[in-house]
Amino acid sequence: MDTICAISTAYGTGGIAVLRVSGQEAINIVDSLFAGRASLKEAQAGTIHHGRIVRNGEELDDVLCSVFHAPHSFTGENTVEIACHGSLFIQQELLRWLIDAGCRAAEPGEFTRRAFLNGKMDLAQAEAVADLIASQSKAEKDLALSQLRGSVSNELSALRERLLHFTSLVELELDFADHEELEFADRSELKNLADEIESKLAALLSSFRTGNAIKNGIPVAIIGAPNVGKSTLLNALLGEQRAIVSDIQGTTRDTIEDTLVLDGILFRLIDTAGLRDSNDKLENMGMERSRKAAQEAQIIISLAEPGQNGIILDFNTSSVVLNVLNKADLMKDGVSLQGETDGKRLSISAKKGDIEPLKKELIRIARESMNTSAVMLSNVRHYEAVTRAHQAIQHVQEGLQNGLSGELLSLDLQDCLSALGEVTGQITNQEVLSNIFSKFCIGK
Amino acid sequence: MDTICAISTAYGTGGIAVLRVSGQEAINIVDSLFAGRASLKEAQAGTIHHGRIVRNGEELDDVLCSVFHAPHSFTGENTVEIACHGSLFIQQELLRWLIDAGCRAAEPGEFTRRAFLNGKMDLAQAEAVADLIASQSKAEKDLALSQLRGSVSNELSALRERLLHFTSLVELELDFADHEELEFADRSELKNLADEIESKLAALLSSFRTGNAIKNGIPVAIIGAPNVGKSTLLNALLGEQRAIVSDIQGTTRDTIEDTLVLDGILFRLIDTAGLRDSNDKLENMGMERSRKAAQEAQIIISLAEPGQNGIILDFNTSSVVLNVLNKADLMKDGVSLQGETDGKRLSISAKKGDIEPLKKELIRIARESMNTSAVMLSNVRHYEAVTRAHQAIQHVQEGLQNGLSGELLSLDLQDCLSALGEVTGQITNQEVLSNIFSKFCIGK
Repeated sequence: MDTICAISTAYGTGGIAVLRVSGQEAINIVDSLFAGRASLKEAQAGTIHHGRIVRNGEELDDVLCSVFHAPHSFTGENTVEIACHGSLFIQQELLRWLIDAGCRAAEPGEFTRRAFLNGKMDLAQAEAVADLIASQSKAEKDLALSQLRGSVSNELSALRERLLHFTSLVELELDFADHEELEFADRSELKNLADEIESKLAALLSSFRTGNAIKNGIPVAIIGAPNVGKSTLLNALLGEQRAIVSDIQGTTRDTIEDTLVLDGILFRLIDTAGLRDSNDKLENMGMERSRKAAQEAQIIISLAEPGQNGIILDFNTSSVVLNVLNKADLMKDGVSLQGETDGKRLSISAKKGDIEPLKKELIRIARESMNTSAVMLSNVRHYEAVTRAHQAIQHVQEGLQNGLSGELLSLDLQDCLSALGEVTGQITNQEVLSNIFSKFCIGK
Repeated sequence: MDTICAISTAYGTGGIAVLRVSGQEAINIVDSLFAGRASLKEAQAGTIHHGRIVRNGEELDDVLCSVFHAPHSFTGENTVEIACHGSLFIQQELLRWLIDAGCRAAEPGEFTRRAFLNGKMDLAQAEAVADLIASQSKAEKDLALSQLRGSVSNELSALRERLLHFTSLVELELDFADHEELEFADRSELKNLADEIESKLAALLSSFRTGNAIKNGIPVAIIGAPNVGKSTLLNALLGEQRAIVSDIQGTTRDTIEDTLVLDGILFRLIDTAGLRDSNDKLENMGMERSRKAAQEAQIIISLAEPGQNGIILDFNTSSVVLNVLNKADLMKDGVSLQGETDGKRLSISAKKGDIEPLKKELIRIARESMNTSAVMLSNVRHYEAVTRAHQAIQHVQEGLQNGLSGELLSLDLQDCLSALGEVTGQITNQEVLSNIFSKFCIGK
């Protein structure tokens, strides 16, 4: 494979920047531009060398070169990482010199793609690298790191391995189709395995909601009657004047979203238009959006003010509903100025920034949903493949129930194997790979 | 000195990021968070180690640690550079873990400051590190690199060394003040040295205009009568619609500046208000700015259109004046539609983008001014110190002329030595250092 190069650190001016060069000729190419105490070609693997980048007597910069030998590098290829001064001009010039010297500019994710192709990691692990780089919160980072460590891969590979064994036996029977009495694959054992796989895949699929929420933020919708202080609460949680606040009913029309990290967990807060009976067309459109946001949220904050009950949800939802009483500063000793007592609802005052109990409750609910040592799916591609595997194994279960022939069973077994193999990349194609790695940043 | 840490790569999300840790305890502190095949404490200098960052059983990331032993590092101290995944969350979390483990967050430029304090480089070289990082063009980078290599330092140190020798001799005479006949320092030799130093410092001072222009861009003012196409030319040079262009005279009122790199040289282009006789107060204010810009420019593009002479400059300038005829597309075979021929002026058409001859001429003039192998000053602080050294050595010359006493000579000699020593940092104080390094980026 040809030798590729890219700037691997964030775009911009910094103290230092790192360019990565990987491929058969990586060490030779960098060495041709390197003037140090010794040649990089003779450098031991895993060592760092100070020197100058020079071409035709012209000096570009003082650099540190880290040398890695195949297969002991990230990509599994010969690799040199060049740390130069972090001027954009120097970074780009060095990239140009490397290309002139025989490298090709790397495509997004190409280093990780090579790591995958060279067997340094499977596809789900490679995808975890991108997730790790994009992670914004502890929970997200932990999820990506666990996937990088092979949690998803190991779980699915193990199931696939056992299923593969049975499938071979079933297919062996087909070769002896004349001898109807032959049954290499014990049908009751196969049924047990199918049941086990079905339930594990079902668990994985249901983990996706949480996994996806960790990655993109747990959706929290704030709903309630007009003027109970929904936007004020959003602003208080965010610590900034994100939403316009006024005394006028219906100030918020569109749903307003922003993210917030609490205790290492990413939340996606959604402020909505106040719900009430109205004939105003525009207002009704806003309320329609409020309902939709609430339906899709994982947590609903149903906000009310003293002397008022929370909104009655006129839709089905699997969300956790948090009943919260705002403007608690208008009450005395849990008794509102209207003489109402309140013990069951969470009392806050968004205006006074007195929202700690609510924050704690959000963290508690989020932790509860994440409090599982089980493997979690967070990648849409994995979710889609596992869904197909799950459908296929259900067909296998039905087939076994109905005494389906080995030939037909085998088709469903192959579907399941293939879908499981797609996640780890045991079964893949160029298009899928290109699609996955094109979403990476350049230089990784 | 305590152990400091910082993110050294550019701010943002990248493939990887590098954190730098420097100080007596650098290796111990990073090792306390590092789980790899072997301990970093036992690692050889100049080697790279793959491992995980772990604290109380919690994993943060997979990293590569580069280990440097004092004094063989950039700072001259024990240093570890940690390359982690380039997520902002991971970078900031790692920084926090390092601080929790006993590091202090580095101040801007503190690594380079330590390199200076540990004698790895002098002050002018340390300043060159910041210039190198900020460099935007080849000329600028070359200038910074030459200063980093010690061009300015060596020139001034050598002069200072020789002057120091004479000064000691003059001061020795003062100890034997009773013996008037004693003259350790040969006055004619001292005069020769003073003459040599004076002329070298004068040359350095005059190099500052070019050095400064390389660093901040060579100022090029575009002047001319209204509507000759000055703004159109600015836009054509920049390749973007930077200035508003219209048929209305006086469209440009304020001077408009932008930078442009041509052939590795940074130019600072200044578009100005058209010059003509006018009674309009606002227009005259604009024209005043045009004249000021032209006076301060290194190159003046005096733009005219066919059938028109260039503006007559009513001020003194040492700038190079380029007479340029715009709208050359209105001429045929060098003959304007008004029947005017033109061979002496550079013919262009800004509107049609036919400006190559002008670009080439700008590059030629810039190269000519830079075409000197002599040492160049580019730093305002150096310029200021060398100016003082120059004044002091002129006083010494006058003193020698007038047969001044050793006592009085010595004062001027000390002034000169001190000013020269300030550039390289042989003479310095905390305030000056803080001022210099506060302009650095963090992490360098």
